[in-house]
Amino acid sequence: MYIGIDIGGSHISAGLIDQEGKIIRKSSCSNNLENKYEQFIKNIADLCQEILKEEGMSIRQIDSLGIGIPGSVDNEKGTVTSISNIKMKDAPIRQEIKKYFDIPVYIENDANCAAFGEFLCGAAKGTRVSVTITIGTGIGVGIIINDKIFGGFNSAASEQGHNVIVVGGERCTCGRKGCWEAYSSANALIRETKKLLDMEGEFINSKIHEVIKGDYSKINGKIIFDAAKEGDVLANEVVHQYVWYLSEGLANVVNAIMPEVLVIAGGISQQGDYLLNMLINRVNNYIYTKQSPKTELRIAKLGVDAGLIGAGMLKMNY
Amino acid sequence: MYIGIDIGGSHISAGLIDQEGKIIRKSSCSNNLENKYEQFIKNIADLCQEILKEEGMSIRQIDSLGIGIPGSVDNEKGTVTSISNIKMKDAPIRQEIKKYFDIPVYIENDANCAAFGEFLCGAAKGTRVSVTITIGTGIGVGIIINDKIFGGFNSAASEQGHNVIVVGGERCTCGRKGCWEAYSSANALIRETKKLLDMEGEFINSKIHEVIKGDYSKINGKIIFDAAKEGDVLANEVVHQYVWYLSEGLANVVNAIMPEVLVIAGGISQQGDYLLNMLINRVNNYIYTKQSPKTELRIAKLGVDAGLIGAGMLKMNY
Repeated sequence: MYIGIDIGGSHISAGLIDQEGKIIRKSSCSNNLENKYEQFIKNIADLCQEILKEEGMSIRQIDSLGIGIPGSVDNEKGTVTSISNIKMKDAPIRQEIKKYFDIPVYIENDANCAAFGEFLCGAAKGTRVSVTITIGTGIGVGIIINDKIFGGFNSAASEQGHNVIVVGGERCTCGRKGCWEAYSSANALIRETKKLLDMEGEFINSKIHEVIKGDYSKINGKIIFDAAKEGDVLANEVVHQYVWYLSEGLANVVNAIMPEVLVIAGGISQQGDYLLNMLINRVNNYIYTKQSPKTELRIAKLGVDAGLIGAGMLKMNY
Repeated sequence: MYIGIDIGGSHISAGLIDQEGKIIRKSSCSNNLENKYEQFIKNIADLCQEILKEEGMSIRQIDSLGIGIPGSVDNEKGTVTSISNIKMKDAPIRQEIKKYFDIPVYIENDANCAAFGEFLCGAAKGTRVSVTITIGTGIGVGIIINDKIFGGFNSAASEQGHNVIVVGGERCTCGRKGCWEAYSSANALIRETKKLLDMEGEFINSKIHEVIKGDYSKINGKIIFDAAKEGDVLANEVVHQYVWYLSEGLANVVNAIMPEVLVIAGGISQQGDYLLNMLINRVNNYIYTKQSPKTELRIAKLGVDAGLIGAGMLKMNY
């Protein structure tokens, strides 16, 4: 049995995971980004104690604990190399966790955990080379090569979400201009929708106005996609442009890595086949090597739990 | 002792390569793109016979023969999967070569051969993860991971030269719009120079006009870089823009793969440190993971022979 931890911007989740990657029990707590790392560690330990207690288990029955972190890590040292928003930079995560639980502790980038989860028990199971793209507030990319997470020489790969697809384009949160993430994250979809909602003309009758009733903070990907499916002109305009940029970036990932399967995960993946069908033809049209066996695009099977499951099973990466 | 073959757009080269990657003897013939593949094979066989004869050697003294091809290959079958310009598509290269020489025959994409050569005996020697970018008429990318060429699941990686850096931008030879190659190949540099030479105003006194004396076909990368070094305003404008696009694409490659060393090869690499110094700061500024150990940019050590040497030593990839 494993424990997986997923550290997100708003919540920390812990899951008890069995050998087949099934979540036996899961619990979450809110994440105060202002906390120092010692408090994060204590919150993680408390969550673990809670799920163990609820299952009547002791830590001695757990093979290992794995943590997915929204940043880059040095798993050898067990530290966080680089992270935004959360006060964990240079934190000796493994050493601190071991003060609570004396079991093997692994840490890894969260997008890599999601890719590892989808490879072990999800949409990329049985492949030798796969890539999982987690699309939410940002874009995370995880690469699996020959059954292992591929992180490059410094374990910081892959950051293709911050690859420029429009030189000199939209300013990205990372400081660079024109990143894929600045066009194809859920945040980008929402930003573009807001722009059109502010315009005069044909968009003034958009259903989205009815749904949000003037409260722009209510806008999310589901509202936009739902409106598009109902034929809303504004939503279709935004989704059409969004799918274009998303496809260009996906084709770039295919060209770079040539994975057997490319998995779409994260919040946007809830659009399922509706989204997938819009992407497949475009991506196949954009990729370079049209005569070689083609990468297959799939929607994630593990949903929002991919990262948690992958983190829990990190032991299998070593 | 090995034989390496490099198939280019204008020439076919064959080299006798020793165990350390040194070229003992080399010979070339012109390449008629209209030839059928049987004629290509005969030309290759003739070149091999020639260099063997000149060295007083027999084919029995050769361990293996490797061929670098400007396209994608299926090394298992020994066939060409996809190729432009040259009439070799689906050609059973290995089988045909073996009619002349009964020794192990390996085939591989030429950019991958160059990367393998630089890894075995050049600028990326001793690294576990490296990428070599061959910049000439196009942009070829070869990835080495854990001592082997990484070609993705279909052996067609990496085609990052055809990754879009300007969505909807310049039309590329591949059909896609805005590819890195369409901005950062030597051809793109020449195209942009021609555009400015046709303009009125401050560019009318460019030194390049003096050098080419109205014959635009004479323009090449060296002439442009030489003029820039002498302070020519037009050349500096073109080089400045070229370096910008090149850096954006190189940073994309670093973000995607995080290689320990990124090697710049091909004709443009002859600009050496002058080019390298312009690239390093920009690329380091564009990459995402600024706090992790950094990828080192280097100029190729094997020059134009990287592909030939890498092809000759392909046996070491298996």
